[in-house]
Amino acid sequence: MTLSIGVIGVGMIGQDHIRRLTRVLAGADVVAVSDVDLERARAVAEGLPRAKVYSNGEALIAAGDVDAVVVTSWGPSHEEYVLASIASDKPVFCEKPLATTQEACLRIIDAEVAHGRRLVQVGYNRRYDAAYRAMKEVIDSGSIGAPLILHSGHRNPSVPPHYTRDMAIVDTAVHDIDVARWLLGEEIVATTVLMPRKSRHGGDLQDPLLLLMETDGGALVNVEISVNIRYGYDIRGEVVGEDGTVMLGESAPVLVRHGGTVSGRVPADWRERFLRAYDTEFQEWIDAIRGGAGATGPSSWDGYAAAQVCDAGLESLNKGVRTTVALREKPDFYDPPGPL
Amino acid sequence: MTLSIGVIGVGMIGQDHIRRLTRVLAGADVVAVSDVDLERARAVAEGLPRAKVYSNGEALIAAGDVDAVVVTSWGPSHEEYVLASIASDKPVFCEKPLATTQEACLRIIDAEVAHGRRLVQVGYNRRYDAAYRAMKEVIDSGSIGAPLILHSGHRNPSVPPHYTRDMAIVDTAVHDIDVARWLLGEEIVATTVLMPRKSRHGGDLQDPLLLLMETDGGALVNVEISVNIRYGYDIRGEVVGEDGTVMLGESAPVLVRHGGTVSGRVPADWRERFLRAYDTEFQEWIDAIRGGAGATGPSSWDGYAAAQVCDAGLESLNKGVRTTVALREKPDFYDPPGPL
Amino acid sequence: MTLSIGVIGVGMIGQDHIRRLTRVLAGADVVAVSDVDLERARAVAEGLPRAKVYSNGEALIAAGDVDAVVVTSWGPSHEEYVLASIASDKPVFCEKPLATTQEACLRIIDAEVAHGRRLVQVGYNRRYDAAYRAMKEVIDSGSIGAPLILHSGHRNPSVPPHYTRDMAIVDTAVHDIDVARWLLGEEIVATTVLMPRKSRHGGDLQDPLLLLMETDGGALVNVEISVNIRYGYDIRGEVVGEDGTVMLGESAPVLVRHGGTVSGRVPADWRERFLRAYDTEFQEWIDAIRGGAGATGPSSWDGYAAAQVCDAGLESLNKGVRTTVALREKPDFYDPPGPL
Amino acid sequence: MTLSIGVIGVGMIGQDHIRRLTRVLAGADVVAVSDVDLERARAVAEGLPRAKVYSNGEALIAAGDVDAVVVTSWGPSHEEYVLASIASDKPVFCEKPLATTQEACLRIIDAEVAHGRRLVQVGYNRRYDAAYRAMKEVIDSGSIGAPLILHSGHRNPSVPPHYTRDMAIVDTAVHDIDVARWLLGEEIVATTVLMPRKSRHGGDLQDPLLLLMETDGGALVNVEISVNIRYGYDIRGEVVGEDGTVMLGESAPVLVRHGGTVSGRVPADWRERFLRAYDTEFQEWIDAIRGGAGATGPSSWDGYAAAQVCDAGLESLNKGVRTTVALREKPDFYDPPGPL
Repeated sequence: MTLSIGVIGVGMIGQDHIRRLTRVLAGADVVAVSDVDLERARAVAEGLPRAKVYSNGEALIAAGDVDAVVVTSWGPSHEEYVLASIASDKPVFCEKPLATTQEACLRIIDAEVAHGRRLVQVGYNRRYDAAYRAMKEVIDSGSIGAPLILHSGHRNPSVPPHYTRDMAIVDTAVHDIDVARWLLGEEIVATTVLMPRKSRHGGDLQDPLLLLMETDGGALVNVEISVNIRYGYDIRGEVVGEDGTVMLGESAPVLVRHGGTVSGRVPADWRERFLRAYDTEFQEWIDAIRGGAGATGPSSWDGYAAAQVCDAGLESLNKGVRTTVALREKPDFYDPPGPL
Repeated sequence: MTLSIGVIGVGMIGQDHIRRLTRVLAGADVVAVSDVDLERARAVAEGLPRAKVYSNGEALIAAGDVDAVVVTSWGPSHEEYVLASIASDKPVFCEKPLATTQEACLRIIDAEVAHGRRLVQVGYNRRYDAAYRAMKEVIDSGSIGAPLILHSGHRNPSVPPHYTRDMAIVDTAVHDIDVARWLLGEEIVATTVLMPRKSRHGGDLQDPLLLLMETDGGALVNVEISVNIRYGYDIRGEVVGEDGTVMLGESAPVLVRHGGTVSGRVPADWRERFLRAYDTEFQEWIDAIRGGAGATGPSSWDGYAAAQVCDAGLESLNKGVRTTVALREKPDFYDPPGPL
Repeated sequence: MTLSIGVIGVGMIGQDHIRRLTRVLAGADVVAVSDVDLERARAVAEGLPRAKVYSNGEALIAAGDVDAVVVTSWGPSHEEYVLASIASDKPVFCEKPLATTQEACLRIIDAEVAHGRRLVQVGYNRRYDAAYRAMKEVIDSGSIGAPLILHSGHRNPSVPPHYTRDMAIVDTAVHDIDVARWLLGEEIVATTVLMPRKSRHGGDLQDPLLLLMETDGGALVNVEISVNIRYGYDIRGEVVGEDGTVMLGESAPVLVRHGGTVSGRVPADWRERFLRAYDTEFQEWIDAIRGGAGATGPSSWDGYAAAQVCDAGLESLNKGVRTTVALREKPDFYDPPGPL
Repeated sequence: MTLSIGVIGVGMIGQDHIRRLTRVLAGADVVAVSDVDLERARAVAEGLPRAKVYSNGEALIAAGDVDAVVVTSWGPSHEEYVLASIASDKPVFCEKPLATTQEACLRIIDAEVAHGRRLVQVGYNRRYDAAYRAMKEVIDSGSIGAPLILHSGHRNPSVPPHYTRDMAIVDTAVHDIDVARWLLGEEIVATTVLMPRKSRHGGDLQDPLLLLMETDGGALVNVEISVNIRYGYDIRGEVVGEDGTVMLGESAPVLVRHGGTVSGRVPADWRERFLRAYDTEFQEWIDAIRGGAGATGPSSWDGYAAAQVCDAGLESLNKGVRTTVALREKPDFYDPPGPL
């Protein structure tokens, strides 16, 4: 009855998901782990009574007692583990990116379509955030009319030294890309990156930047990416419709009046801001699989589409021009009752 | 056409009203000043091209070119100037208190009723504050049902050394008393002062305290008075009705995100918080008189009623018991279209 | 490793906790149920693969495979199940009230102290709410100085037909009583109930009412109880300290601009408002027991103290006077590192 | 002592300013009016005890008792009245636009520089709004670091039938253009108009649109213009700096809890939103002139620069491309202590 899960890649994010699966959520247990660093896999397994260590991801996927797979390994390895999971008819939760090339994404889509059953879910956690869900509910209710513009702000207090220019798009903005597609229910067809003067905190990085996106329905999305803004981790968003707007609220649990101000806390980092969204994401994944589904959340198609938009965004960032996004035709397979 | 005003008492508050009448508002000028400190009166008059100095308030009131009188002298002198203004059939704006004894208030009421025309307005400025007016509008609209409870908070960052125990009622809470009567449209019939432990900032003062009041209609008012709360000057209020509530909003013009918080400014003092209310109060007074009225704002009756409630509150503060308020019968003269 | 739990009383609240224990939280399973209505117990057990049905609570408590007990039966039966759990050295989570008489509460305390190990936890869920926890953190940090006054508002949109006059204290205000003791870290020593005019929605109920409480340290607590206020379920709170205040924030996840207003949602009922607090409450209980503790949350002493304050509040409600609370001496057993 | 003002053009906005000058503000009176519609001028003068009617603006400007001039006539006539005022060495307040062509603006600048004294002030009222002023104060304090991006939203509930496509730039966005220059202290050097799908309420209008602007210092400004958004008149703004941001607050004076929501009012139109800013704008103009200055607010240069940016914006709107703004060299005359 309990879902037996194997986790491939037990670095920081993998360990956090293991904690979630074993100590926070109901209905699951971790029975298998693997990692390129076998010692690390062994160390992690020691804290898990039922977990066996596998020397490679393929063996873990093939194991008879593994019901479902979580892939949190290095990006370039995602494709092979996702394809192996599909081949084994096992549900697989793959952290973003789905794969690191367009071709790899397409191979996954082809394999999943050929298999005939949705098995792949990609880790776009914002769709599970209570505020974004409330926002989508308002849009879908029609009360603000057709959505025309989405303003987003994605702000990090700082980024680590290894953060590169491209990561502003593929690691940071990718969440805004997915959530824009999901909120608006439309595909993004063009991107333009605008580059204002740089923050003194960002060194050579283009920080901040503005990512403009156009959807196939003509909506505009504008995303401010600021990754060294010091004051906190802050996710802002407002959808402008024909008759009104819906905006993410201020999230502070208490207001303090002190020293001439009334103030609320801004989250320190993404863990604090999206802790609950991650929990919900995995609980719904577990429940869906235990209920007989292979996957109900963000699909291979969503992973592919986001990757294509990221590629266009990167080109715009590097060439300073507007770029278009060319998606292959969407298989009916991914149409509703899918996630978009 | 311009209203020619005489000001009796040109201390800090008198000078501030002169600034307002001559440099902020339309339709008035100050043509006469007097003060117990004749030198001070002369110094103030120097900055006012048209103003003559009078050696006493009675002479000022009697002056032929004085159309209306502002009384901002020492409290115990209010009665005589207000009575003299009534006798001269001149509109008089009297800063709180209307008078310092119950008997004096009643003499003013008797004189005004006998005179047959409203001439006296008392300086309860909160009735002119945009937020309190919006609150009253919501109550009067009926949308929250009958009002049942009023929660108030009256917070000062600090008080001067001469601030005494009694002033928490007669100088501070008196504004909450007036605004409660006005918002609810009911008279206060009983008061109880509750005394929690004292703030270390207040020395021997009973600070904070809670003033509970009961109206003749059975509504409850609870007022927190905190006069050394350091963080700012903050006026809080919420009216609880049968179907909903209405609450004073946060007033910060901008929100600043910095250092882990999102924060708005709290006013530093009552000047900052009620600057506009004072302007509106005097502009409406000027406009009413220029339009032919003697007074349209808080009346002698309001001054009397507030004074009676203060007396009851003081007794409660000093004896630690619930006390009742005995008002004389209200003359029809003060009934609507009066202010309550 | 998984905590095997038996649930006594499987009405609405019992079933909701079973859902939580089996489908939301990690580390627990329900292996035993009992109910005065044996048919109901059987029906509930059918959805639980591992659960056996017991004909009475004592048998359930005695069962060898039951590690810990949840008591959600009728109030008058709480004492016997809690005492039996202590006798069996099994941790027991008892929904409020701990017991229905002062004597019963004292018997439980005596039994637990004699047993020598904390085993009893009472279901005061607000201590697990993120906003209340943030409030307590601010108070404990000292940044607002010593807390002097706590303003609370407890508002229900409506109550069911069987809701009686006394329930405003023992069912509704009891949460404010517990949270006041916890936030301030002081015992309540006196209560006064004030009764404003009644809402037209409340029939014969005294609705709203104001419950005033005094702590042994001299702090004042004032709680507005409005149980038919229609607009939503709304929990308000502000602690006034010497240097500032801390207030529960507005909780709306999104703000909608439409039709002349900017608005946020108010929770519809306590389930929506405190859903997460219940989850956290039980997860921490499970984790504590799995970690070797018997109980770490609200204790028998908290249950007893709240019950005593409720009794005083009821007397005040019924007699219209201030009443005092007489607590027995607190056993050292319940002192820190306990919850207060 | 009182400033005697002549008003050229007494349509709706002219009459509103006359009301302000005669009935709201201190220190001024209207002594002269003129209008292309002489009957209208006569009707307006009837309500003004001291006002004479002039058959044309030049005669009004030349009148010996006119100290200062307010130009609220048809846009194409602005140039001639402003030039005549300069020639008469009289301060002139000119509602936007300063003039309708680039050449006309330059002629005014040349004339004012040649005259050697600032006399011209242009009616950009947002610089007098309390919230924008607080925003500028935060930026200038340096606490959020260097400003990098300005997000603006300019929303009207609806526009009249004569509102044309170009007016979105020259009538609506012009305010955002001026306030961006003022807040950032930089000139705008390029504009791009982005055109999302149209609101069903806007007919053939390009509504909404996004106006992107680049400053000479490299800051980015993005302005959403929505002129049929139904829900209210809403001005949004946030400046993103290196260390934090500053955002216009929610302005609702009270919050109402009713029917499942907590809500605040959004202004119905620009009059409600900027009423106070207009008052402050004129009071400071009057005070400056009475204090001996010719003008201290937005200058001819500001009028010229805004007009140039509008022209670039129009070209971008009509051609769908990024356009640059070419300003002539700024005369030292307009440098600090001027307004930028």
